[in-house]
Amino acid sequence: MPTTEPLSATLELALELIRRPSVTPDDLGCQELMIERLERLGFHIARLPFGDVENFWATHGHHGPVLAFAGHTDVVPSGPHVHWEHPPFEPCIDEAGMLCGRGAADMKGSLAAMITAVERFVTAHPDHPGRIAFLITSDEEGPAVDGTRAVVEHLREAHERLDYCVVGEPSSTDALGDVIKNGRRGSLGGVLHVKGKQGHVAYPHLARNPIHQAMPALDALVREHWDAGNEFFPATSFQISNIRAGTGATNVIPSDVEVVFNFRFSTEVTHEQLRERTAALLDGFGIEYHIDWTLNGEPFLTPEGELVDAALYGVESVMGRKPKLSTSGGTSDGRFIATLCSQVVELGPLNATIHQVNERVRAADLDDLSRIYEAILAKLFVNGTAQP
Amino acid sequence: MPTTEPLSATLELALELIRRPSVTPDDLGCQELMIERLERLGFHIARLPFGDVENFWATHGHHGPVLAFAGHTDVVPSGPHVHWEHPPFEPCIDEAGMLCGRGAADMKGSLAAMITAVERFVTAHPDHPGRIAFLITSDEEGPAVDGTRAVVEHLREAHERLDYCVVGEPSSTDALGDVIKNGRRGSLGGVLHVKGKQGHVAYPHLARNPIHQAMPALDALVREHWDAGNEFFPATSFQISNIRAGTGATNVIPSDVEVVFNFRFSTEVTHEQLRERTAALLDGFGIEYHIDWTLNGEPFLTPEGELVDAALYGVESVMGRKPKLSTSGGTSDGRFIATLCSQVVELGPLNATIHQVNERVRAADLDDLSRIYEAILAKLFVNGTAQP
Repeated sequence: MPTTEPLSATLELALELIRRPSVTPDDLGCQELMIERLERLGFHIARLPFGDVENFWATHGHHGPVLAFAGHTDVVPSGPHVHWEHPPFEPCIDEAGMLCGRGAADMKGSLAAMITAVERFVTAHPDHPGRIAFLITSDEEGPAVDGTRAVVEHLREAHERLDYCVVGEPSSTDALGDVIKNGRRGSLGGVLHVKGKQGHVAYPHLARNPIHQAMPALDALVREHWDAGNEFFPATSFQISNIRAGTGATNVIPSDVEVVFNFRFSTEVTHEQLRERTAALLDGFGIEYHIDWTLNGEPFLTPEGELVDAALYGVESVMGRKPKLSTSGGTSDGRFIATLCSQVVELGPLNATIHQVNERVRAADLDDLSRIYEAILAKLFVNGTAQP
Repeated sequence: MPTTEPLSATLELALELIRRPSVTPDDLGCQELMIERLERLGFHIARLPFGDVENFWATHGHHGPVLAFAGHTDVVPSGPHVHWEHPPFEPCIDEAGMLCGRGAADMKGSLAAMITAVERFVTAHPDHPGRIAFLITSDEEGPAVDGTRAVVEHLREAHERLDYCVVGEPSSTDALGDVIKNGRRGSLGGVLHVKGKQGHVAYPHLARNPIHQAMPALDALVREHWDAGNEFFPATSFQISNIRAGTGATNVIPSDVEVVFNFRFSTEVTHEQLRERTAALLDGFGIEYHIDWTLNGEPFLTPEGELVDAALYGVESVMGRKPKLSTSGGTSDGRFIATLCSQVVELGPLNATIHQVNERVRAADLDDLSRIYEAILAKLFVNGTAQP
């Protein structure tokens, strides 16, 4: 039911953030809202805009290991508002107790939970050991070039230390905290051009059909067993997303075919190996080709350790359930942070409705998520394993 | 050299026709030029416009077998005139004795040669046995729906008789008359849609990649031995001209793939058999698909007989060389005429420059071609095999 009780601080902040239609790369004041709260707690703020992307890095505390909360204020477009039960940028809590609006799950709810968790923790432990940080961008859903990637490079050059990172991505599947992502597969993209010789379909002996030539080679790539995965990762997968040849004319053998493909790869194989094996396979078919490669992200993995322990502890102590560790799904900004920080996990609300119309999340889950984040802080910095 | 002698009647008429930039489906008065000459000889004229296409059917003589000369007044576009040595619609005879201009070879030269051949023959044999006809269209290079196809349907409904047909398509390869086409392969087009299930490349187990599914099936179609051809036809060939899947997004497994293909088939197989065998092959791969078929033309063949004999005689008597019979190359309007006329050959000038810039033909070849056509008339109707 529409609640008559006052809303929690977490939900109040989540509503304020969702009201800002900050579609990538727009931030529209979301970060200033967060900065205001963090400055009040004594955080040191570094605004780090790159290109048209707003970012900030905030720190609290003076020595010891650094735990960073990472996330993004940008959201994916809503599409036509008429398809939504409630307007996407006029958030509300519906009769079922769901917070509705674009960004509720991905990931303004998490941002609000991080802020309130830190507010309670710092108020209770003003002289906490360790350091608490925020790494916030407004370009996670877009090109992701001037966002976390750029901030991480800046931090690297500034010799900033990063020991633990909790990314607020919606990791949960069926119940809050049931899944913690302790890694992600790598993503390697390729655009393959197979060159033939144009001609008329009535004179195929004078042409060389690149589609005909490419097919058995592509089939071999599809059938290749790239690896078997491991304890943490599923087997590396190869998918063709686009293929294109021909001008539309039905009587012309085209001169070339373009194939766009993508590897999602485990830590059992490197992107260099994938490139070499792809070339070796294609070479076996005697075709004329070249490939433009794009490494979208290396795989990363945070096996057991202080951060995973603290995250497991946080979920178990608040929710009474034991999370599953997983590395499935797409890429996230974790891939950039992992290049600087050896322990990275993603822990956030249910991802069932992200990027869809009627995006929503249980309102009570955001309050629980805030307590989980607070428990992680406590475990790492007060009664936990981190030494100031 | 630019000739100072008066031009032959054939070349005069060819120049007049080429001056009209009659790009498909425009005729721009070419047919009226021809009609004027034929009316003067006593031909009966039936103008048969269909849609925006000009056509005519003309006959001379009252009884006996019908020999039709068939051709088209339309030409393919010239492209930018700056690419031409001489403006494409300002024909000239260059220093090498070549008649230059769009349509010189395909096929205004042939039309002029037909007219002058008939003029000489009818003048010499005003009461010739047999009947002489012209079947002329202005849409051979275009959709070819309202052209010869429509005229042939009209003639069929009118119970017109057609015994022999000489199509003026440029059949010669290296020297005038070295090749006579006595048939053409059939052309069967298909658009194959393979249906998969869209998804994210990071979750291939939730999707079904139609590109991956289509590849081995397409490869099987490419490798299939459809027939071995026969004495007159090369083996049936299968070519993919277009393939298209994906929206451009690199992380989306597409929902379907579209494949455009074409069979050029011999008389050893029917288009129904090709459809059935294609479906049977695809069914073996357990894919979800459908195919939209288009029969562009049945194969046709004119084996030895009066018309082939007359055409061979014509070339040998004028040129002193023995032509080769061939069924190679693309489709022509012969495919439509063959449905009404059991003996069809294509005989015309060299095709080396057709559809290209600087289209040209030896001027002297057109005079020889006119004599060849006249010899065919004589062979069939005067000293030949046709009985009035």
